[in-house]
Amino acid sequence: MPMTLYHYYRSSCSWRVRWGFAFKKQELNLIPLSLPDHEQEDASYLAKNPSGFVPSLEIGAEYYGESLAILEWLEETVPEPSFFPRKPEERLLVRQLSMTIASGIQPLQNLAVQRFVAREQPERLSWARHWIRRGFSSYETLIMKKSGEYSFRDQLTLADLCLIPQVYNARRFGVEMEEFPKISKIFDNCMKRADCISTAPEQYQPCV
Amino acid sequence: MPMTLYHYYRSSCSWRVRWGFAFKKQELNLIPLSLPDHEQEDASYLAKNPSGFVPSLEIGAEYYGESLAILEWLEETVPEPSFFPRKPEERLLVRQLSMTIASGIQPLQNLAVQRFVAREQPERLSWARHWIRRGFSSYETLIMKKSGEYSFRDQLTLADLCLIPQVYNARRFGVEMEEFPKISKIFDNCMKRADCISTAPEQYQPCV
Repeated sequence: MPMTLYHYYRSSCSWRVRWGFAFKKQELNLIPLSLPDHEQEDASYLAKNPSGFVPSLEIGAEYYGESLAILEWLEETVPEPSFFPRKPEERLLVRQLSMTIASGIQPLQNLAVQRFVAREQPERLSWARHWIRRGFSSYETLIMKKSGEYSFRDQLTLADLCLIPQVYNARRFGVEMEEFPKISKIFDNCMKRADCISTAPEQYQPCV
Repeated sequence: MPMTLYHYYRSSCSWRVRWGFAFKKQELNLIPLSLPDHEQEDASYLAKNPSGFVPSLEIGAEYYGESLAILEWLEETVPEPSFFPRKPEERLLVRQLSMTIASGIQPLQNLAVQRFVAREQPERLSWARHWIRRGFSSYETLIMKKSGEYSFRDQLTLADLCLIPQVYNARRFGVEMEEFPKISKIFDNCMKRADCISTAPEQYQPCV
């Protein structure tokens, strides 16, 4: 029986998890929440995930949040195909890249923070663009030596699962992606993959 | 030979890593950077870590950043004593708690963001307190069922390594910790441990 994920189609953290399950060929039963309608603040959802963030995964009547925690759990329970290379220092680099997005960018540009920073859309977008550009500059430098078709050589890893949904947000928020040629190339390569395309926001938009 | 860590005594991410190494009885050679003096923005440091964040670990003439990536690498290379419980869902909970701090709180209250948000100290502190209180509220609820002496039962885990340095910041920024009785209890318990005390900011203050 497929597992159940509470998600929002355009949330980058939700896409990471949808894509990770597709990459490992694990089915998911998706339950959509509308963040613009504040459904993540309903008492029934907060009982599942007190942070009020998406996504949340249901495992045996318990609920778990935080996309990278969920993906590390998925890696431990379904090891192949792996989200990581084999050598410890290469795995460290992949996790460093993942955290550069998951801790260095995403938390600063999410909807809750944008709403707190400013009332008007132009100021919100300017704030989001600042932190995305700062983080992408680091990322572009960090992958200089070892990127190939993907962030780490020609192997799709956890880093790409974090990067691509963030690029999607960046484009939506008006970041000039020409500044980041390696990231842009990896984005194009990922957008040719069935597991990426089939879990992208466009697939879910009509149902919210 | 001990490994080398670039750190700042009061950075919560640096303390996580110092404590993790002490917990696993691994020596560290510490090189201090002064964040108030912007030493993390020097070209020589940015060549090691383009994010301009601390800490960074040197491994065989390569440099790696992001504290949780470093700690996952340490767990893989020095498995015992472990930062995690044994069961996959328990490990997931510990990583969820860790990310609640590392992604949900720390990035929003760090010095770079505070500087960007406001020029004056009272506004900076009010911003930091808002995000710490929001994250701690989730954390306090998430540990309700399973906390003991520490965040997960009576076992020190990665979650505590993230939590305690964040509580230290919270106290420094004026968060009323009485709102969070379980977190406060865990803080008191950790502050009785030699590996926690010996890596706390107070140990390094004089040398910066």
